[in-house]
Amino acid sequence: MNERVLVKHLQDLADGPVSVSGWVETVRDQKKVQFVILRDETGAVQLVNPATREVGDDATPEATAALELTETISALATGTFLTVTGHLKKDERVKLGGLEVKLSGLEIAAAALPETPIAADSAQDKRMDWRFLDLRQARNNLIFRVQTTLEHALRTYWIERDYIEIHSPKLMASASESNAELFALEYFGEQTAYLAQSPQFFKQMAQSAGFGKIFEIGDVFRADPSFTSRHATEYTSIDAEISWIDSHEDVASMQEELLAFAFQTVADKHGAEIKELFDIDLVVPTIPFPRIPLAEAVEIVKARGYDIPRTDGDLDPEGERQIFAHVKETYGHEFVFVTDYHPEIRAFYHMRDEESGLTKSYDLLFKGVEITTGAQREHRVEVLEAQAREKGLDPEHLDFYLDFFRYGVPPHGGFGMGLARVLMLMFGESSIREVTYLFRGPTRLAP
Amino acid sequence: MNERVLVKHLQDLADGPVSVSGWVETVRDQKKVQFVILRDETGAVQLVNPATREVGDDATPEATAALELTETISALATGTFLTVTGHLKKDERVKLGGLEVKLSGLEIAAAALPETPIAADSAQDKRMDWRFLDLRQARNNLIFRVQTTLEHALRTYWIERDYIEIHSPKLMASASESNAELFALEYFGEQTAYLAQSPQFFKQMAQSAGFGKIFEIGDVFRADPSFTSRHATEYTSIDAEISWIDSHEDVASMQEELLAFAFQTVADKHGAEIKELFDIDLVVPTIPFPRIPLAEAVEIVKARGYDIPRTDGDLDPEGERQIFAHVKETYGHEFVFVTDYHPEIRAFYHMRDEESGLTKSYDLLFKGVEITTGAQREHRVEVLEAQAREKGLDPEHLDFYLDFFRYGVPPHGGFGMGLARVLMLMFGESSIREVTYLFRGPTRLAP
Repeated sequence: MNERVLVKHLQDLADGPVSVSGWVETVRDQKKVQFVILRDETGAVQLVNPATREVGDDATPEATAALELTETISALATGTFLTVTGHLKKDERVKLGGLEVKLSGLEIAAAALPETPIAADSAQDKRMDWRFLDLRQARNNLIFRVQTTLEHALRTYWIERDYIEIHSPKLMASASESNAELFALEYFGEQTAYLAQSPQFFKQMAQSAGFGKIFEIGDVFRADPSFTSRHATEYTSIDAEISWIDSHEDVASMQEELLAFAFQTVADKHGAEIKELFDIDLVVPTIPFPRIPLAEAVEIVKARGYDIPRTDGDLDPEGERQIFAHVKETYGHEFVFVTDYHPEIRAFYHMRDEESGLTKSYDLLFKGVEITTGAQREHRVEVLEAQAREKGLDPEHLDFYLDFFRYGVPPHGGFGMGLARVLMLMFGESSIREVTYLFRGPTRLAP
Repeated sequence: MNERVLVKHLQDLADGPVSVSGWVETVRDQKKVQFVILRDETGAVQLVNPATREVGDDATPEATAALELTETISALATGTFLTVTGHLKKDERVKLGGLEVKLSGLEIAAAALPETPIAADSAQDKRMDWRFLDLRQARNNLIFRVQTTLEHALRTYWIERDYIEIHSPKLMASASESNAELFALEYFGEQTAYLAQSPQFFKQMAQSAGFGKIFEIGDVFRADPSFTSRHATEYTSIDAEISWIDSHEDVASMQEELLAFAFQTVADKHGAEIKELFDIDLVVPTIPFPRIPLAEAVEIVKARGYDIPRTDGDLDPEGERQIFAHVKETYGHEFVFVTDYHPEIRAFYHMRDEESGLTKSYDLLFKGVEITTGAQREHRVEVLEAQAREKGLDPEHLDFYLDFFRYGVPPHGGFGMGLARVLMLMFGESSIREVTYLFRGPTRLAP
């Protein structure tokens, strides 16, 4: 019995007997010789078998076995999972890794149906129907290995600085941010429960609980009927919240350090593969990231010849792209904090600067796309309640949240960041669907 | 301006000026001297202030300030968050850490209402109403720091072994495990969505996708109307799934190694604090954990004088306690794998042993409480479909899941483990409510 060897480890082995497990990517069934490309989670290897097309009536058991093996290979469907044994041989002429395995045995774990329903270039929606096959592509596998490394780097950064990891509830008795785009469900026949749109209230609760610095990476839900490439009804949100800050600047400087560390970790571990499979040079951002107040950003966009049609003073997607171009040209940077948003376009709980009246908040853009909103929170309960009223929210529905501020709370702030948006931009993908394990949208609940 | 110093770092400083931020735990307002215990996320420190109870009409500004400080302290409500400046002085007579801070200034960030609605010994349900105050207790703070360390250790173990972290969707078009205890919601007026009861199907999908080894730590939902100390309607599930296993034994041996590593990490970092605050000696389990087939476990319980009243052959809670006592006496161990369950009491997707007909599965008990079910999964689609039918499930509803097996899949298995159960048992708590950030149950949706 040979122990299973991962494909990426084959190059470290001396020529000799090996066992490899994976799935059939392609079969080239030539008259005299058969080639199979077998892939596992670490790479692909060429298997080779000299074909035995017929044997005489008086064939030896070896010859009969050879015939069987040949026929089994001829009948292999793409996607079939199997374990093979054979003889590893380094051969520089083999394009795929400079080695191949000459087969001696083959055991099928589960045969695939003969017709694979999608190809790598099938339409996106069709690929989403068969996401488990789509994910077999080496590019997609890499995306989720990078996701793993990225998240672990974020958590490691935080944990080395004594942050506490929380898991806030997703079932709530009332809305977390606004009453719009809420999923509601019947809760034991008596109450209505809502699915959390963000962990906002609960991560602020941790400040009131004296946790100091916390983070959460978890699911949030939005009953958002839009079909854009950046929206989903369910997604992974990366959140942090810290106490005893002086302003949103403390949050921004934590976030830029965090991202620089995480991107460095990803570049070190996967930079070469990202280059190979996506032809992208992953840029590790320098700190500090550039900062531009929103009003100034609008002027910059205007000076570049684009008039933002929005009337609320915020950037639109084209404005964001213009700011990215400006930042890239001026600072050679892919990230920018846009700061000092008007309260009208911010959540009620953002703290306002006493002099300017603007919120102590920022959006972080990566390659011209918003990936984060961050802010100092208003922690003075009377001010918070007044700001809620001003937004037309009923403080009675917010009472459980306002309680967090009535029994003492430190000044605090934090940010929320969409995992899929970061990955989409990192890989130059056009949609978060391509970097989400199983996308959920208005018309997408399965598989 | 002094930089804020965490309480735990005060002991490393020389006597001199310091600034500390936190909340008021107690005030002892004596005639001649005032004491405040201030707590932050790292510990508690005694603040001291010689009282100035009155000043003459011709008082100096310093005397007036001293009077004001005294009055401010007299009026401090428990829970108020504040920043103080003062002079750090080591003093062995001070029981709390052998040091105190003589106050020179005090700035209130947010004053608490004068009446704190709960005390440390309030009834559990009342404490849950005011969970953010309940969490300020040093014991509760420790629980979540341990949670953080525990989870990070689990992820580190996996990531060092090339596992991929996934985030599976919680919104599904059909049930994940059974049709019972499902939360349903209207999804854009046309469809019904269900909240995932486990990531089971989607972590198996990762096997079909060729991911090899995966894990997920995420939320799951059960519309479970029960009020036991071990059940919740929403909880954090720790899941792993691995390819190319020979049996459930491969899963069990991964899990025991994982837990031994995680417990060791927790013991190294928090063992002394757990001893101090909970009077518990955290035992790092040795591997291998004991393994007992279920049939044998039932005999052992019987021999100990307890007849299990259940008729389905499974252990009941008292039976589990008896097995714990047996394992503790026999092996000096707190964990035990109970194996080889009859298919009738297992999910349809558990693989069955061809000889015995029993499932290739286990439950892991920790201190006599089930924390995990693990199994090899049936990956042969015809067998899987037959087993689903046998359980009365309609394969049509499972079609999206069965598809994962029709296009090739490796042999695989995994486990699911309840985070709160592990923590509850680790800390000797009587209910998962005490170790859940915000518990959710049939009558508990807020805060």
